[in-house]
Amino acid sequence: MKVSADVRAMIERRKKGYTLEAPFYTSEEIHALDMKAIFGQHWIQVAVEPDVPEPGDYTTIDIGDDSILIVRDDDMQIRAFHNVCRHRGARLCNQEKGSLGNIVCPYHSWTYSLNGDLMFAEHMGDQFDRCKHSLKKVHLENLAGLIFICLADVPPADFAVLREAMEPYLLPHGLKDCKIAASVDLVEKGNWKLTMENNRECYHCVANHPELTISLYEYGFGYQRSPANEEGMAAFERTVVERAKQWDAMNLPSAEIERLSDLVSGFRTQRLPLDRDGESQTLDAKVACRKLLGGFERADLGGLSFWTQPNSWHHFMSDHIVTFSVIPLSAGETLVRTKWLVHKDAREGIDYDVDNLTAVWRATNEQDRTLVEYSQLGAASSAYQPGPYSPYTEGLVEKFCEWYIGRLDSYANTPDEQLASHGEKIVSFMR
Amino acid sequence: MKVSADVRAMIERRKKGYTLEAPFYTSEEIHALDMKAIFGQHWIQVAVEPDVPEPGDYTTIDIGDDSILIVRDDDMQIRAFHNVCRHRGARLCNQEKGSLGNIVCPYHSWTYSLNGDLMFAEHMGDQFDRCKHSLKKVHLENLAGLIFICLADVPPADFAVLREAMEPYLLPHGLKDCKIAASVDLVEKGNWKLTMENNRECYHCVANHPELTISLYEYGFGYQRSPANEEGMAAFERTVVERAKQWDAMNLPSAEIERLSDLVSGFRTQRLPLDRDGESQTLDAKVACRKLLGGFERADLGGLSFWTQPNSWHHFMSDHIVTFSVIPLSAGETLVRTKWLVHKDAREGIDYDVDNLTAVWRATNEQDRTLVEYSQLGAASSAYQPGPYSPYTEGLVEKFCEWYIGRLDSYANTPDEQLASHGEKIVSFMR
Amino acid sequence: MKVSADVRAMIERRKKGYTLEAPFYTSEEIHALDMKAIFGQHWIQVAVEPDVPEPGDYTTIDIGDDSILIVRDDDMQIRAFHNVCRHRGARLCNQEKGSLGNIVCPYHSWTYSLNGDLMFAEHMGDQFDRCKHSLKKVHLENLAGLIFICLADVPPADFAVLREAMEPYLLPHGLKDCKIAASVDLVEKGNWKLTMENNRECYHCVANHPELTISLYEYGFGYQRSPANEEGMAAFERTVVERAKQWDAMNLPSAEIERLSDLVSGFRTQRLPLDRDGESQTLDAKVACRKLLGGFERADLGGLSFWTQPNSWHHFMSDHIVTFSVIPLSAGETLVRTKWLVHKDAREGIDYDVDNLTAVWRATNEQDRTLVEYSQLGAASSAYQPGPYSPYTEGLVEKFCEWYIGRLDSYANTPDEQLASHGEKIVSFMR
Repeated sequence: MKVSADVRAMIERRKKGYTLEAPFYTSEEIHALDMKAIFGQHWIQVAVEPDVPEPGDYTTIDIGDDSILIVRDDDMQIRAFHNVCRHRGARLCNQEKGSLGNIVCPYHSWTYSLNGDLMFAEHMGDQFDRCKHSLKKVHLENLAGLIFICLADVPPADFAVLREAMEPYLLPHGLKDCKIAASVDLVEKGNWKLTMENNRECYHCVANHPELTISLYEYGFGYQRSPANEEGMAAFERTVVERAKQWDAMNLPSAEIERLSDLVSGFRTQRLPLDRDGESQTLDAKVACRKLLGGFERADLGGLSFWTQPNSWHHFMSDHIVTFSVIPLSAGETLVRTKWLVHKDAREGIDYDVDNLTAVWRATNEQDRTLVEYSQLGAASSAYQPGPYSPYTEGLVEKFCEWYIGRLDSYANTPDEQLASHGEKIVSFMR
Repeated sequence: MKVSADVRAMIERRKKGYTLEAPFYTSEEIHALDMKAIFGQHWIQVAVEPDVPEPGDYTTIDIGDDSILIVRDDDMQIRAFHNVCRHRGARLCNQEKGSLGNIVCPYHSWTYSLNGDLMFAEHMGDQFDRCKHSLKKVHLENLAGLIFICLADVPPADFAVLREAMEPYLLPHGLKDCKIAASVDLVEKGNWKLTMENNRECYHCVANHPELTISLYEYGFGYQRSPANEEGMAAFERTVVERAKQWDAMNLPSAEIERLSDLVSGFRTQRLPLDRDGESQTLDAKVACRKLLGGFERADLGGLSFWTQPNSWHHFMSDHIVTFSVIPLSAGETLVRTKWLVHKDAREGIDYDVDNLTAVWRATNEQDRTLVEYSQLGAASSAYQPGPYSPYTEGLVEKFCEWYIGRLDSYANTPDEQLASHGEKIVSFMR
Repeated sequence: MKVSADVRAMIERRKKGYTLEAPFYTSEEIHALDMKAIFGQHWIQVAVEPDVPEPGDYTTIDIGDDSILIVRDDDMQIRAFHNVCRHRGARLCNQEKGSLGNIVCPYHSWTYSLNGDLMFAEHMGDQFDRCKHSLKKVHLENLAGLIFICLADVPPADFAVLREAMEPYLLPHGLKDCKIAASVDLVEKGNWKLTMENNRECYHCVANHPELTISLYEYGFGYQRSPANEEGMAAFERTVVERAKQWDAMNLPSAEIERLSDLVSGFRTQRLPLDRDGESQTLDAKVACRKLLGGFERADLGGLSFWTQPNSWHHFMSDHIVTFSVIPLSAGETLVRTKWLVHKDAREGIDYDVDNLTAVWRATNEQDRTLVEYSQLGAASSAYQPGPYSPYTEGLVEKFCEWYIGRLDSYANTPDEQLASHGEKIVSFMR
């Protein structure tokens, strides 16, 4: 049985509106299940098109024990393969990034083309059939420059819904014409779901994120109304309406779309005004890069945010884009990979300064890391029991948990044959 | 079944007078059992009153995955709580020591009073009941300044026996009026029971502890009589009788009390004369602190030792106190926390020198760590088999093992309902 | 059951001519099985006679959790014991090498003679029987100076076959009269079987070992004939025939003996000519030590190679010997211990230079470590599946796998009684 009776029972008895039971955060058995049922079956955001700008450029991504090779072919197509030689299994590309003509195994020089075909293998005799030893392919979707992969044989079909909804929001920011100005890998000593839960609320922002809340309105994330905040919230709501009108006139959609728990490929988006000078998520709320993205002429486009289940979120502004990709490393360790992108023609030191560009999210990520680690420590305690989410500020955290539990439940109830390699597997929309 | 059939069989076939079978030292399964059956059910010595001298002072102690918050309230009462927020489970206090007014969670600012009540939680809505979200309490006993906690719902009742016996021995040394002059955490790569077994005999002292045996009489720990040691042992026995008379006259009890294996809260005590100048466990056997403890006027009060099951021992002298608290970290790793206490009015550099104060036990602890680590390495070998304890010098080691096996046996035979949270659990005296 | 149903199934369905299934490289369960069934039942090459040149010299070897003490007694006999005190189990000798008169336990000074008898133990009382507390013995074979141990109660009897075949090849090189000029321990992050597979083919040499292929003929290890290599292979074959005649005249056997998979104590040997100056495996293919081994007068004796199942290989030349001993540390970690030996009368800095002596194999080992680690990474991937061995260049890799699977199968089918301590166990030749 691919999901143990104990875990099935925990899935079934999950109490809505409360944090998950401790083993979901601490158990290596559930970590292994997450890697199969969540990270092995869904669309995972792992890279951006500017990771592989030129033909022959590649980048490698580790997901659990799998290494995925993402490479741009000479026809500009971006493809993904398992980074494993079909001879003795050696890892083919052993750098995070590089450039190559063909893919040559370092062990015995088996040589593959950039579309995965085995071109050459010495001493294998006349019976050997090269065609049966191509690299194993991995599904890949390129959404306006955001690269998603899926390790399942048959990936969730509703990525098309996400694509249709999101392209009008994302394309104007021209991610394909960006370059990566900075990239930071942070390892948090906490379960990946605590990282995601932390991302899905701003209840903790005021007390913890002094840099972020310079530009981020605290009212944008669901507060319980009280006499103390009544005035501020009303003012914020008026600003939202005003700015939406301006953005509509520029063909920049801003309305919230929230499909976090009713799609297999769950997501949410919203464009919100920024506070103070209102231009960008920086320490002075002004743009960090003088060269604007797309064909933008105005800097005050607010922050377009895009959140995906299970593992990413992104902030698109007029001058730069910040992308966050989350990869579990173990039950208690999670990689958060943050990339800052600017227009590919922007000049470092002239149009932008990397320290200024990255200041807010470097600080915010560190603060969140600490909070995630405090939560992980607490979840391991014998005294831990699921606690209540705020119905005001933690609604999207609950939606993350709902989605997660629903996906585990679906996986637990899918017949093994449908999950098996090359089997006929139908992944329909949820519920 | 909370104790596996394999472990039950090992408990039942334990051979008296011999070391334990290897898995008791090396198995992570038995380590987990020890954490529940021994460290989760008994009184564990973890701190001293001078760890939290003032109102608002706190210290945190890790026992397995549990973090315990020990805090002194404004009414001077010392209390213990699980250091876990009732909201999202974040660890509340993340330093080993500190001082606070209220207990404020770093994540979303839920605020608890020093008696554990939830005072404040924002955005939780009108249905939320603060009273149901107090911190979880942990039992605490303060014995003459030595702080014990118990993680069980119903702690062993016979701590009262230990208290009644020990207060007359301990109180004259005035631990409550001490300060911590030094504290050292040592991680031994060995099972905690090897650390305790090492503590319960001095068969190894002559060959391994040159500093300790300056003041410690080698005859005080059970030698087989031989022509070579006959004279020394007789002289030592005369000294014991003489000094006991002097101490009796000062109302300082010295007689051995040995309840190591017949109580759940097992202990042993004895006041023994010291060798050479006979004042203190130092390199010259003289006091290390000029300001004496309690109201003492004489320095030559010998060494009052106090050993507890499962995890502590303590030496009380006229000028200073040394306390040792043992906490398992894994099957093969153990924390030994040593604290040296002097009168709170003693002035460092004038009345005492920290290097001189700590010299004997810093050296001795390191020597014992090496021996414990050699034993752990041996226990892991396929060639290891239980070996015989000396009937002369290792009688108290045998009593430690007897107590340990008896307590596991009792735990294995306690119905689950009696161990369950908030259940009616009767922990009577052993046998 | 000592071998799980899953592993038995994998043993039975092993596909000939293909790499092993992934769990054989990655599973800790199979690592534990390997330590019992392979490293606990076979002759393991672990040391050389020059490790313990003088009476009282000892060396300790870790095999899994076992520490083996190899010591030379005053009668010059070399013996092996479990390095575990029979009292409290402490490890007796805690250095890798040293010299001693008797074996004294550091804990309570129990004292053993160099033949393992307990000579002295204090305070144990009159009932104690010293004769029942000798050190536990380990089987040892000394083959022309190569030391093998076997942890089984009854070791494989066919070591006699290996000895009879190999002594004529090895003895002329006079390993007993050598000294260890250098020793390097390398930890490879890969399964030990990947280390062995790497050793059993030279398909990877041309692309990876520029230093080694200076002296090593690439044709000596099974190439598929092609127009491109036809001429080179024919020339190599003529050289082999010519040199064999010369060596025969010197009583130096050179013919291949290949018993890798039909003996429990499987082995292979062959003396092959070296390329260029043809003297030694060095960067200029000349001898690295002016003082030749044995009574040799000529330097161009080629390379006599000796490979054993499961864990060693050795190259004997006219001027020096290189020995390689492989010890698994975990499923994914392996120790490769390399020793370079020269005549004991050779003078460092005058007759030989250590950097020059070790240059080829230090470089080659590092290159192989990288390849093994790439293979381990690939084996862990969900995309890994057994790949085909070359019928030309990887025939000896296949023989290693055949032997390994055969030995596991034999272990799985041996009744437990026959494996039990002191039981009557018959280990006959395979098949």
